[in-house]
Amino acid sequence: MTQSKTAPSLKIIPLGGLHEIGKNTCVFEYDDEIILLDAGLAFPTDGMHGVNIVLPDTTYLRDNRHKIKGMVVTHGHEDHIGGIPFHLRQFDIPVIYGPRLAMALLQGKLEEAGVADRTEIRTVRPRDVVRIGKYFLVEYIRNTHSMADSFSVAIHTPVGLVIHTGDFKFDYTPVDGEAFDFQRLAEHGERGVLCLISDSTNSEVPGHTPSERSVFPNLDRVFSQVKGRLLVTTFASSVHRVSMILELAKKNNRKVAVVGRSMLNVIAHARKLGYMKCDDDLFVPLNVAHKLPDAGVLILTTGSQGEPMAALTRIARGEHKQIRVREGDTVVFSANPIPGNTIAVVNTIDQLMMRGAHVVYGRDKGIHVSGHGAQEDQKLMLALTKPKFFLPVHGEHRMLVKHSETAQSMGVPAENMVIINNGDVVELEPEAIRVAGTVPSGIELVDSSRSGVVHDQVLKERQQLAEEGVVTIAATIGWDGKLLTKPEVHLRGVVTTTEKARFEQSITKTIETALGDRWKEFTNNFEADASDVDWARVEAHLESELRRQMRREIKSNPLLVFLMQTPQAASTSPVRRQLEAVKAS
Amino acid sequence: MTQSKTAPSLKIIPLGGLHEIGKNTCVFEYDDEIILLDAGLAFPTDGMHGVNIVLPDTTYLRDNRHKIKGMVVTHGHEDHIGGIPFHLRQFDIPVIYGPRLAMALLQGKLEEAGVADRTEIRTVRPRDVVRIGKYFLVEYIRNTHSMADSFSVAIHTPVGLVIHTGDFKFDYTPVDGEAFDFQRLAEHGERGVLCLISDSTNSEVPGHTPSERSVFPNLDRVFSQVKGRLLVTTFASSVHRVSMILELAKKNNRKVAVVGRSMLNVIAHARKLGYMKCDDDLFVPLNVAHKLPDAGVLILTTGSQGEPMAALTRIARGEHKQIRVREGDTVVFSANPIPGNTIAVVNTIDQLMMRGAHVVYGRDKGIHVSGHGAQEDQKLMLALTKPKFFLPVHGEHRMLVKHSETAQSMGVPAENMVIINNGDVVELEPEAIRVAGTVPSGIELVDSSRSGVVHDQVLKERQQLAEEGVVTIAATIGWDGKLLTKPEVHLRGVVTTTEKARFEQSITKTIETALGDRWKEFTNNFEADASDVDWARVEAHLESELRRQMRREIKSNPLLVFLMQTPQAASTSPVRRQLEAVKAS
Repeated sequence: MTQSKTAPSLKIIPLGGLHEIGKNTCVFEYDDEIILLDAGLAFPTDGMHGVNIVLPDTTYLRDNRHKIKGMVVTHGHEDHIGGIPFHLRQFDIPVIYGPRLAMALLQGKLEEAGVADRTEIRTVRPRDVVRIGKYFLVEYIRNTHSMADSFSVAIHTPVGLVIHTGDFKFDYTPVDGEAFDFQRLAEHGERGVLCLISDSTNSEVPGHTPSERSVFPNLDRVFSQVKGRLLVTTFASSVHRVSMILELAKKNNRKVAVVGRSMLNVIAHARKLGYMKCDDDLFVPLNVAHKLPDAGVLILTTGSQGEPMAALTRIARGEHKQIRVREGDTVVFSANPIPGNTIAVVNTIDQLMMRGAHVVYGRDKGIHVSGHGAQEDQKLMLALTKPKFFLPVHGEHRMLVKHSETAQSMGVPAENMVIINNGDVVELEPEAIRVAGTVPSGIELVDSSRSGVVHDQVLKERQQLAEEGVVTIAATIGWDGKLLTKPEVHLRGVVTTTEKARFEQSITKTIETALGDRWKEFTNNFEADASDVDWARVEAHLESELRRQMRREIKSNPLLVFLMQTPQAASTSPVRRQLEAVKAS
Repeated sequence: MTQSKTAPSLKIIPLGGLHEIGKNTCVFEYDDEIILLDAGLAFPTDGMHGVNIVLPDTTYLRDNRHKIKGMVVTHGHEDHIGGIPFHLRQFDIPVIYGPRLAMALLQGKLEEAGVADRTEIRTVRPRDVVRIGKYFLVEYIRNTHSMADSFSVAIHTPVGLVIHTGDFKFDYTPVDGEAFDFQRLAEHGERGVLCLISDSTNSEVPGHTPSERSVFPNLDRVFSQVKGRLLVTTFASSVHRVSMILELAKKNNRKVAVVGRSMLNVIAHARKLGYMKCDDDLFVPLNVAHKLPDAGVLILTTGSQGEPMAALTRIARGEHKQIRVREGDTVVFSANPIPGNTIAVVNTIDQLMMRGAHVVYGRDKGIHVSGHGAQEDQKLMLALTKPKFFLPVHGEHRMLVKHSETAQSMGVPAENMVIINNGDVVELEPEAIRVAGTVPSGIELVDSSRSGVVHDQVLKERQQLAEEGVVTIAATIGWDGKLLTKPEVHLRGVVTTTEKARFEQSITKTIETALGDRWKEFTNNFEADASDVDWARVEAHLESELRRQMRREIKSNPLLVFLMQTPQAASTSPVRRQLEAVKAS
């Protein structure tokens, strides 16, 4: 019965990637059609105990599954494709378009998760244009980033052209020679871009981000000075960096042993697809490397972020089965710590040094550059595309604010941009941009089993358990309101100076007092129905008395698990048995 | 009977402050006398669940309490005096010498902890020389640092002169006009310093650390541009910074409301002793500030490190009872995040921005400088004192390594320095420095009650509880090896997809099967001694069976608390009762 007088607006709904770095997931919706742009995962932050993976809440997509026509992937980083295997268990995505390398990595993930049959994967090349549904025409524009085979996209929609930058930097001398397609961007800028959706990661950083290639001479200088064994770590997904490290290994006459699952995986795919060019005989297995002279070996390893289970972290702890760091080794960190990982990284560096290694690290060495453009790059993107409306994404709140200030400094009016949060519904029309509501936008936490979802209540319990431990008390109460056995007490993770025996005594006393005083209240009138007991009230009363005792004696607030056992429901109380005997007689 | 042929060496034993920043505690021992230099605390790192304060293991001091002659305090930061109230509960320190401000802060701590009568506090002034015991003569040398009233010390010992820098930077234009006593340092350098023990905090940082005063014009520019309400946060203990902020408040015609316990405490002591000079009428209580025009108010608050319970953090979360941040407010962070606090700080910044505040932060603003000298300052210290031996302290391992490299670059031979860890015993003689053993050097963790010590086992349990939760199962078993009641099961912090009822059923089944199969094994020979039951074995068997079931069904490894209740020890089994009746008859 409802009839809209005007054409619908384009809805842009990011479910992840705003007010955070991670789990980038964006919904574009027009009329009865939805396309998705990327679907990433994030890693747990402090307090997410026992959580391995963080996903966006996908309630909105589950509720609108019938509208989903397909997905566009910009590049193969985990925070852009890592969520897809999980989502495919919940709703169908008829087709996923993306670059060859990203699609190869995704295919592996889907197979591992057993959901490869739930979608169709199609690879794209620069300037490919794909139609999804009846409303969306998506053009792939080559960009430059730390990951090889990365794209920005121009999305032609009924309201106008939207450019989503994906993750980008402007690298004039890309390692693989694949230049940023400035021409297509500029052409769109000339014809008219309704809205630019742009990467805000480095919007707090002044200047230009240097070319990935600037790292090469600095790494070369470091490598060439090393006499002993060389260990190098970087992000496994930084295909260009890994390429350069392999090239430098060859130049320095070192054979390469690759350590760490993700490093092996990315190198295998990148070599197969031609994104890394090096000879097979550059690589040796670890056991062969161990037999070569130290000066002939480079061990390329995961662990640049101090991840607890990564190879280099285990090497630093002395827990790696095949690699022991020793005097004369040099370890090169070709990566900066991501904020939040700083402590883990410096601890790893310290441990490596204590084992005698020389460690090369730090921002002043020129052995790492970011994969994201800084303020001047963000300005160039705005200058090329000349958008009417602007939507900063891919960043924490203050980064979005800085990026919007940068856009304003270039003449985009403040009212032509919105700073949004995950779940905000942005309505875009030819003459307006606005936030027009929200959809569910929480997080889903996945534990190490990759199947269980960790709910808020569980996290709260884990937090309390972590901070104060748990006291377990079991007591069996008879029909007469007396303890049938001595209560069993267990303390785990609890700090107390009270001796266990004394603690148990006082628990026994608390229970006895609590029952003695009030037992009559908990039993029904004797005449009416024998000694039926309101066990639920007994339990609640005892629990509150025990909790009070706990605060008094332990001076903390551990989780209390009180297990009250009672005579079998099936069995009958002695009094009732007598009564029934009387009745029966 | 033993007789040493040579004079004893000086032992230098740091119990804290090495391979870390925090809990600086150093023992100097000669013959039968010990003096302590500082005794600080540290704050918990990741995984120290429920821990508030970290202290060094003081076993060595408890074991040698009879040798302790006194303590020397260099300045009043928590990582230099915070441990003293705890130690005084364990051993006596006959006398504590220190600067007036540090001693005023310490006095408050000792009174709060109820141990003020356990030691004698004596204040010192620049160039004061104090004798402690028969071997040690300690000279106080004024230095410059972020804390007012800070000192380096020259310790005259039987083996020679040892200079301990304390925490220092070289500030040529100190805010309080109290200049670094270059002359005394240089004089000692001229006469001969046997060993320099020096602050390594910034040994990774090239160049000179700017003067504290360099912050003044930058803060002034920021403050003068603010039209609305101004909130400023910094370290409460940075007396000079607080002084400048107060001076700028006055200059900008703003009244100051101070928020946060430690800020109030330090300002009170510093004003009383004359380290901060400002009029009483500069300050207003919060309720008065709320009635002033926004442009006339400066709120000075704790929380520069995003500490969860600090005032600014609660303001950012919208949980502070008296202060609501609103559009038009400006919040200035005059402090950089300490590594490890970065995430907490940027989260606070984001939350303040989301509430509409303009937030001024970041390293490029010149509104914060370090209190510790960088590489060139460390070189100047070496150049002034010209030590024969060198001992880098106050830093994580890699900082100690860098500092030792700096010393080597200035001509101190590598064999004249040692890089040590907490608990290492450094033996210093006129012609040698060496590590000659270790003493216990762990950590003691104190929880929020400030009385309970959190032991390793408790931490391990808390870690498991945090990651996987706890399953509690209570079961009552009768003399006949049958369950007397349905087992009680509680899950806390556990992720499972199994329904509780089904889970309980399968636990009941597991117990029944485990008992049924093996019951005879657990009971003594019937004829020999009736049906006595080996309950401990029953419990162990059930526990291992339940654990196996857990791994199978929950696919994780929660902590299992199994509470087996059995018939009262006093009561007798029916069979034995029969037997006894037979015997009696």
